[in-house]
Order: sequence, then C-alpha cells, then structure tokens
Amino acid sequence: MSKNLILIRHGQSEWNKLNLFTGWKDVDLSEKGMQEAAQAGKSLLEYKIEPEICFTSYLKRAIKTLNIVLDTMDLDYLPVYKTWRLNEKHYGQLQGLNKQETAEKYGDEQVLKWRRVFDCQPPALDEKDERNPRNEKRYKGIDPKDLPATESLKDCIARCMPYFNEVIMPEFKKHDTILIAAHGNSLRGIVKNLKNMTEEEIIKFNIPTGIPYLFTFDDNLSLMEDKFLADEQTVKKLMEQVANQGSSKK
Amino acid sequence: MSKNLILIRHGQSEWNKLNLFTGWKDVDLSEKGMQEAAQAGKSLLEYKIEPEICFTSYLKRAIKTLNIVLDTMDLDYLPVYKTWRLNEKHYGQLQGLNKQETAEKYGDEQVLKWRRVFDCQPPALDEKDERNPRNEKRYKGIDPKDLPATESLKDCIARCMPYFNEVIMPEFKKHDTILIAAHGNSLRGIVKNLKNMTEEEIIKFNIPTGIPYLFTFDDNLSLMEDKFLADEQTVKKLMEQVANQGSSKK
Repeated sequence: MSKNLILIRHGQSEWNKLNLFTGWKDVDLSEKGMQEAAQAGKSLLEYKIEPEICFTSYLKRAIKTLNIVLDTMDLDYLPVYKTWRLNEKHYGQLQGLNKQETAEKYGDEQVLKWRRVFDCQPPALDEKDERNPRNEKRYKGIDPKDLPATESLKDCIARCMPYFNEVIMPEFKKHDTILIAAHGNSLRGIVKNLKNMTEEEIIKFNIPTGIPYLFTFDDNLSLMEDKFLADEQTVKKLMEQVANQGSSKK
Repeated sequence: MSKNLILIRHGQSEWNKLNLFTGWKDVDLSEKGMQEAAQAGKSLLEYKIEPEICFTSYLKRAIKTLNIVLDTMDLDYLPVYKTWRLNEKHYGQLQGLNKQETAEKYGDEQVLKWRRVFDCQPPALDEKDERNPRNEKRYKGIDPKDLPATESLKDCIARCMPYFNEVIMPEFKKHDTILIAAHGNSLRGIVKNLKNMTEEEIIKFNIPTGIPYLFTFDDNLSLMEDKFLADEQTVKKLMEQVANQGSSKK
C-alpha cells in the first residue's frame, strides 16, 4: 500500500487577472479559476486518487478551489481544516499594487528580489494599517506576535511548516490520501521540505495553478515519487507562465 | 451580552423539485436552492448576525447551502464541522419514489403517517441494498449499528441530539454565535429540544427553507426569544407550502 499527498495551488483570482500583488488580501476566484478547480477535480477522478481529509488556508480563493474540487468529485462531505498558516506569502505594502507598475517604479530587479530572493521582505504594513492582519477580525484568535506585517519566502515557509509538521503529518499517518489546497508560496514550503530542496531550487520552482501535484509515499512515509497529474506539455507551459509574471518587459 | 444560535434549512434540491422522497440520497441544490442560500446569507448580513463556527450534515444540499451563506457573508474562512448525525431523516425504501405517486399507491393516510407520525418508520432498506448507509463509503468510519436503514422522526431526533448536546452545545459555550445548516427533520429535533415541544407540536411545525431561524439566549444559555429572519408574510407563506407537500390532492 502506498500513501498519497496531493497539493493543489488555487487557480486564477480576480487580482491575478488584474496582475496585482495579492498576498493576504481575500480576493475571489475568477471564472477561469473556478474552471481550473473543476478541472483539478476531474483529473483526480481520472487518476482515481481520492482524498479522505483536506486542508486549506483562510483565504477564499483556496477554500473555494477546494470546495469545487470536492464537489466535482462528489466528496463534499469530507472533513476540511482551515488555517491561516497555509495563507499566501504576505506582501506587506505591495498588496494591492499592480505588478507591472511596481516593476516600472522600483525596477525589475527590486521587484524580482521581493518576489524571488529567499529572505527579502517587501516593506512592512504599518501597525494601524487596516490591511495589517492584527486589525482583521478573522485573525483575532491568533497571538498577534505570530501574525506578519510582511513576509519573505523564508518567513512564509517558517510559519507554514509548524502546521504541516504538527497537524497535517500526524493526520497523514492516519489516512491514506490527504489533500492540501493552498497558495504558490505556502505550497513551496511543503515542496521544499518534502524534496529536500535548497533555497535556490525552491525559488526557481513554480507550481502551476489548478494541477494536482501528487506525492506518493511508502508505508513508512518515505517519498517514492512526485508528479503533476496532467500531460507533460500542459505542465511545462503553465510553469513558464508563472515564471514570467512580474517583469516589466511583458 | 446575548448568544445566538442560527438554524438554516437547505433550500430546494433537484429532488424536491421533482417531488421525490430524498432522505439520505445526496442530491444537489437546484438553482433556486442556491438563490435561497444566498438570500439567507443576505438576511444574516442585514440583521448583523455573524456566526463564528458552523455545523452541517454529510449531505451536499446542506453543505453547499452553508458554503453559499458563508461566501455571501465573506466568512468563507469560518470553521465548519460536518456530521452524519445532522443528516435528513432516512426514508428507507421510499427514497427515490415520487411523493404524489406514493400517495396515490398507498393512500394519503399511509404516506402522511410515514411523513408525520412521530414514531412511524417507512419500510427499511435491505442489508444489501446499495442505498443502505452500511454500503456507502462515506459512512465507513461509523459503527454500523448506529446507521439506520429507515427512520421515524423519533429515530432521526434520537441520533441527532447526542451530537447537538455533546458537540454543538459545548462549542456554543465558547462562542457567541453559531450556525447550523441542515434538514427539515434533523432541525426539528433541535427545535423540539430548545422549545420543549411535544411530539404533536413538533410534527405540525414546518421549518421554512432558506430562512435563518434565530434563537437568542442569555449568558446562562436560557432561551429568551426565537424568530425567523424575514418578514412575517414570507414566513407564513413558506410554512404553508411545506405543510401541503405529499398530498395527492395537490
């Protein structure tokens, strides 16, 4: 018997469409994002990979992706656990800014640093900024010192992994197949950990949206194989698209 | 400070539309049912009643009603607990039969008994019937002796209330406002209990679909008031509609 861990990065959101930095802003899926989610559910059905328990973030683009995947698979009744620790990387003051305009203003190099240097944080939100998670009711049960006002990829991974190690992995021991629907950067933390990637490797690794990413383990939870559940050409094309975002040359 | 418990009965399903006995059959919401759910969310917004934690059944018509309510309220991130104990009453062999044809075949009186006599069970499903919950993968973690092959309203209430008393009420002590999205008969169990109704009273009590039913308690969890969150005329009209189902004279 093998065990399966499935990662799904949410599909296009309304702000992805507008090419804005999103981070913790709770924007909705676009129509295309919903279709991507339904396609992810169909792929899992085709590959006969059936989750038993699911995890997602506090952000509706991931939650609704998961709901659509489950509904497509006729598995609406599965348990779903939501956590802020699987949220997207927090983009600090960049949240709400246009990626291309930001690149023109600060230069491609600076924006690429904010987006792609492992421990580089965008400018932090002010304590009183309404976008600061400490001022949002949804995070009121959480110790304010755990809540970010900006994050590097390193920070994002550091707050994601305790949940993965202390909540998700113990559940994975009890179930054969688990599903995590989340975001580009929180999923990077999980991928880096599972594949023992270096900082350089994970920065260059772009997870395509809406394609189930399957990790297969043996009974001792040693990783045997990882693959995207789509044809090779689709995966290659999607990964290139993600890599090209945030350049003013587009 | 007062505390709020909100009940929402799911809106029209594809089988309600066809006038079929549904029970534990996992049929989808109709387009109208989705609109009813969105309206329920809007009513809660208007009345400024905001849940903090939610409960629903294992059946997608209730789960999707809850998802739509939460999405309408921009509260997708709330914790949601799903349990088979909040499922609709199990209709045994009647599941899938047309209500009017059943009334014509067995007589209005017998059908009314199956639907409305407190301890009258419809004919039970065979042990091997694929509709029997013991043969459905979603119930595989549950002790088979707890799973019904048919239910009277009494049986339905008896398996619903342990969850209400042992899981929901302890959570209600920790939160100011909780939301339960479920079914006509499982919600009857909760209403009977909260309002100390007799068997006769609860049988005659029809909960309208898609209208939030608000119970307000004082800090010691003594019930102060219960009311539907809609105008009086809407509530009256909806309750009459529900009462008229299952008669061949329609």
